[in-house]
Amino acid sequence: MDRFDIFQGIKRGEGGKMLLFVLDGVGGLPQKPGGKTELETANTPNLDALAAEAVCGLHHPCAPGITPGSGPGHLGIFGYEPFKYNIGRGVLEALGIDFPLQDGDLAIRVNFCTLDANGLVADRRAGRISTEVNQGLCEKLRQIDLDGVEVFVEPVKEHRAAIVMRGEGLHGGQNDSDPQETGKPPLEIRAAGPEGEKAAALCNEFAAQAREILADEQPANMVLLRGIDRFDPLPEFTEIFGPKAAAVAAYPMYRGLSRLVGMEILSTGETEPEEVDTVAEHLDAFDFFFLHMKKPDSLGEDGDFDAKVQKIEMIDGLLPRLRELGFRVIAVTGDHSTPSTMKSHSWHPVPTLLWSEVCRPDEVTSYGERACNHGGLGIFPAIDLVPQMLANGGWLQKYGA
Amino acid sequence: MDRFDIFQGIKRGEGGKMLLFVLDGVGGLPQKPGGKTELETANTPNLDALAAEAVCGLHHPCAPGITPGSGPGHLGIFGYEPFKYNIGRGVLEALGIDFPLQDGDLAIRVNFCTLDANGLVADRRAGRISTEVNQGLCEKLRQIDLDGVEVFVEPVKEHRAAIVMRGEGLHGGQNDSDPQETGKPPLEIRAAGPEGEKAAALCNEFAAQAREILADEQPANMVLLRGIDRFDPLPEFTEIFGPKAAAVAAYPMYRGLSRLVGMEILSTGETEPEEVDTVAEHLDAFDFFFLHMKKPDSLGEDGDFDAKVQKIEMIDGLLPRLRELGFRVIAVTGDHSTPSTMKSHSWHPVPTLLWSEVCRPDEVTSYGERACNHGGLGIFPAIDLVPQMLANGGWLQKYGA
Repeated sequence: MDRFDIFQGIKRGEGGKMLLFVLDGVGGLPQKPGGKTELETANTPNLDALAAEAVCGLHHPCAPGITPGSGPGHLGIFGYEPFKYNIGRGVLEALGIDFPLQDGDLAIRVNFCTLDANGLVADRRAGRISTEVNQGLCEKLRQIDLDGVEVFVEPVKEHRAAIVMRGEGLHGGQNDSDPQETGKPPLEIRAAGPEGEKAAALCNEFAAQAREILADEQPANMVLLRGIDRFDPLPEFTEIFGPKAAAVAAYPMYRGLSRLVGMEILSTGETEPEEVDTVAEHLDAFDFFFLHMKKPDSLGEDGDFDAKVQKIEMIDGLLPRLRELGFRVIAVTGDHSTPSTMKSHSWHPVPTLLWSEVCRPDEVTSYGERACNHGGLGIFPAIDLVPQMLANGGWLQKYGA
Repeated sequence: MDRFDIFQGIKRGEGGKMLLFVLDGVGGLPQKPGGKTELETANTPNLDALAAEAVCGLHHPCAPGITPGSGPGHLGIFGYEPFKYNIGRGVLEALGIDFPLQDGDLAIRVNFCTLDANGLVADRRAGRISTEVNQGLCEKLRQIDLDGVEVFVEPVKEHRAAIVMRGEGLHGGQNDSDPQETGKPPLEIRAAGPEGEKAAALCNEFAAQAREILADEQPANMVLLRGIDRFDPLPEFTEIFGPKAAAVAAYPMYRGLSRLVGMEILSTGETEPEEVDTVAEHLDAFDFFFLHMKKPDSLGEDGDFDAKVQKIEMIDGLLPRLRELGFRVIAVTGDHSTPSTMKSHSWHPVPTLLWSEVCRPDEVTSYGERACNHGGLGIFPAIDLVPQMLANGGWLQKYGA
């Protein structure tokens, strides 16, 4: 029996309002042996007060020892098995610029690169050209015409862009044209099987036309195509679980991930307080809010322990306003840990609290890594968070008689 | 590999005597924020003393967030995956009146209902007729003759009854004839696929004959058929795990669930001390005793916090006698939580203790929700309880060389 089938039989289609409050990369590590993590260092009276009334724990985003990217990290806390619902890299790149992918689109990551006079790759990133130059090059590439498909060319940052091809019968799984080292020519793209041949031919034709169009550019005189993937939308969150769901995320990647599971994307300002405003404004229209705050992760990746601490403290200050909105269920968690000492995502389990009036509080009185380790949620797979939110919100019936 | 296959390779077929002591619905919630649950409130010196010598934890009956019915709740603590071994509603109704179902029987829940002069359902429960009236009507329905199958008609309570059809080639999965609202006629029963057509035709014929027989009755002049299911017995507990198992349960539903997994059903008195007597009387004849006490659940469903507390205290008083019987392994748990504040089953994990001389005790010294959260069993799926009982009882060999 598929895990989602269980919910088809027990979802009620009504219940209380729920908030999934995600502090991206919130988990961390101490700077020194015996020290405190970023979250433990931060003065978070509001999160601690909520933890004291909540049931706490730590989740493994994908599985113990597995460091998730943003895609799998979010799928887990949305209740989707991250190893089952794999998001291709091309699709993730398009989602990351908020591109409105449609069912069956082929999405491709692009690196502008430099070819030498012999047609060999001299720089796989074309000297990391500026985003402005990138935009001009993408404009030129839009003249590429491919038989039977619509083509979109979208700049990302620096040397990175995304291509989307829209048409019938496109399937991914081809190799990258990126040879992964300099001194070699771009590779021909080949299908892994018969169903990928149409897309492979279109990708090779795109590369050939791009080579002609960019021939006189410097340093970015060619493109390398990577992560060629078909977009197949996931089962919709609302269809699976019941609640009408909305996403509030200032960063496009997280809007894209939310769109992937069928959440409504709410237009929001850039700052954290503006994101809270957005939740408040749309409170009546949705049952489930995914509220995403990016900075703890960014500052962790920068290796800035103190700035991550301060950002967590700033976010803590937003909690009273969120509580006043009257949610029946509030979960606070991250999509993964981002220890500033590692300057990267990590595998460490993520501090999580789940509050409702029927949550059965444990003895945890602060929101931190070691405190949550004593909590009533235990150490659990991230996919078990949403079902427990739904239970607390009254969205599920009894299973079996 | 099927989970049960593991045990085929390692079961020894001998070991010490084990007691699975189930306090139905034992887990609960505090009445007020910061308060204690029913179990934490109860004065349970004997359970606490056993907990101090035991390894403790909390189990999720089915999965986090899922509130189980009695069927899935018991399958889990019997070691059977609740989502794999689904018990249909018709089968559960028949089990609930202790009907001795046989392999391949078709079991159907029945509501007596009232039809108006136009044949439309005026009352789906026929004014909740008394059980005595129900018994008289069932007696009349026993004259129904169906081609090629034996038919049993058994009263349940008030307006509810059960039908069992016994014969070749009967398969369930049809729709209910209950239109779910008044003002509509009973629905024709249709098969979901070709294999269900024989049973569908028999059900429609049963309904047609019932309509004639009951035509002059008031208010119960018709039956609605629901939850049409085939009974396929589960793999037998003794076959899978080794121990010869017996069930002591004053409530018929739990005898039925025990029969479903092949346990021997021991005749017992109604009260908890009589149930303990029954265990003592049959101690020599079985290896594994499932002892079920219903009241904590009933009182939780009544919303009677204090009565649930008192019942738990009363049950605690029975423990010394059970310990004196010399079991090598004692597990105390519930099939689910039933917080009296919710007046229903709930999803909250269930306090569990596992005692043996080789259990590796943890630091938990009382049997309660928050105490068990610090135990050595952790927060675990219910199906992992029986294997750990078997291990402690010496029933399992090493797996692999």
